[in-house]
Amino acid sequence: MWLQRAVRLSPRPRGFHLVTAEVLEALPELGEISVGVLHLLIQHTSASLALSENASPEVRRDFEAWFDQAVPEGARYWTHTLEGEDDMPAHVKAALLGPSLTLPLRDGRPALGTWQGIYLCEHRDRGGPRSLIATTWGETGG
Amino acid sequence: MWLQRAVRLSPRPRGFHLVTAEVLEALPELGEISVGVLHLLIQHTSASLALSENASPEVRRDFEAWFDQAVPEGARYWTHTLEGEDDMPAHVKAALLGPSLTLPLRDGRPALGTWQGIYLCEHRDRGGPRSLIATTWGETGG
Amino acid sequence: MWLQRAVRLSPRPRGFHLVTAEVLEALPELGEISVGVLHLLIQHTSASLALSENASPEVRRDFEAWFDQAVPEGARYWTHTLEGEDDMPAHVKAALLGPSLTLPLRDGRPALGTWQGIYLCEHRDRGGPRSLIATTWGETGG
Repeated sequence: MWLQRAVRLSPRPRGFHLVTAEVLEALPELGEISVGVLHLLIQHTSASLALSENASPEVRRDFEAWFDQAVPEGARYWTHTLEGEDDMPAHVKAALLGPSLTLPLRDGRPALGTWQGIYLCEHRDRGGPRSLIATTWGETGG
Repeated sequence: MWLQRAVRLSPRPRGFHLVTAEVLEALPELGEISVGVLHLLIQHTSASLALSENASPEVRRDFEAWFDQAVPEGARYWTHTLEGEDDMPAHVKAALLGPSLTLPLRDGRPALGTWQGIYLCEHRDRGGPRSLIATTWGETGG
Repeated sequence: MWLQRAVRLSPRPRGFHLVTAEVLEALPELGEISVGVLHLLIQHTSASLALSENASPEVRRDFEAWFDQAVPEGARYWTHTLEGEDDMPAHVKAALLGPSLTLPLRDGRPALGTWQGIYLCEHRDRGGPRSLIATTWGETGG
C-alpha cells in the first residue's frame, strides 16, 4: 500500500512548534497499516522538521535560543543578505536540522518514544504556511 | 518482505560509541535481503544515531569535545534546567545529529563505505539502555 | 519496483555544490515511478548531502563560511590531527548535515519544493570523487 499526500501546515511564528497532532490528523489512512514507514518532507529551505521532547514549552524556547546564538543574524560572514537578516541563518538552521523525518509505523501509528513529538522548526520571522509531502508505504491488515 | 523489531542497546557512558556490530547482530534476517533498506529510529530525545568514522577512538572523543563546547552546559540561555545540566544540551545535540539512520541494503548487509560505522551518540551522563526500532523492507532471494 | 545503483560524483573543491542534475541524470529509471522514494547515501565520513536553496551561489558560499567558523580547524580540542587539519572538522560537519537524503517521488521525479536542490557538501580540501548509493522503490505505471 502506498499513500502520498500534500499536507499544509498553518503559519507559525518563528520558533519551534509541536505539530504531531496536526500532521497525524491529516493522514487518517495510517490506521490501516500494520507495519510500514511514514516519510515527511518539508518543501522549503528555511524551515525544518525534527523529533524532540513533546512536553515542555521551555524545551522548544531553549531550542530557539540556542539556534539564534549559534547561527546569528548580522554576522560578518553573511553575504546573502538581500532577502532579510533572518534568511541566510534560516537556511543554515534548516540544513542542520534537516528537511525530512522517516518514522516507523506499527499497528497504525508512528512507533515513537514516549517523549518524542514532531517539531515544525520555523526559522523565518514570517514563514507563512508550510507544505509537507507525506509518503507512506507498508503492509495493511493484521 | 518486512521486518520490524525493537533492539535494546546496552547502557553507555556519555560520549560517542561504535555500535555497528551490536545492531547488526540483533538483525540476522538482513542476510536474506538482496536489495532493500534498513531504517533505525532511536526512541529518545537525548541520544542520537550517526554514521561516521569507524576506526579511530580519537575521532569519537573529538566528537564529544566539539559538541560539548558547541552546546555548553550552564549557558545563560537555558531555561529548562530542572532535569539536570546535561538535559537541555542533550536535546539540542540529539536534534543536530538526528534520531534515525536510513541505510541501503545490498546482498544481505548495509552498503556502507569502508570507513563508515554506526554511532550511538549518548548525550546524557547516565542515559541508561536505549531503545531502537529497526524496520527493514526489500526483496529476498537473488 | 526496486533499483539500486552506485553513482560517482566527480571531484569538487571544498565547499557546497549543487548536484541535483548530476544525480538525476544518473537515474533515468526514476521516470517510470508514479509514486515512490529515492534514497541517497554518501559512502564517506568527510562529505555529506543536504537539501537547500538552489539558486544563489552566495548561499552556498555562506554555508561554507558558517561551517568553517562553527567547526574550526586548529582548535585546541582536536586530538585526531594526523590526517590533516581539515580531517576532523570534516567528520563533524558531515555528521551535522548527515550522510543521506530520502526524497519522495511523484510522477517520475523528486517532489521537491521550488527552491530545493541537492547539495554535495565537500568538507575536505581534496576529497576526490565521491560515491553515492542510490536506492529507489515504488510503484510504476499510472
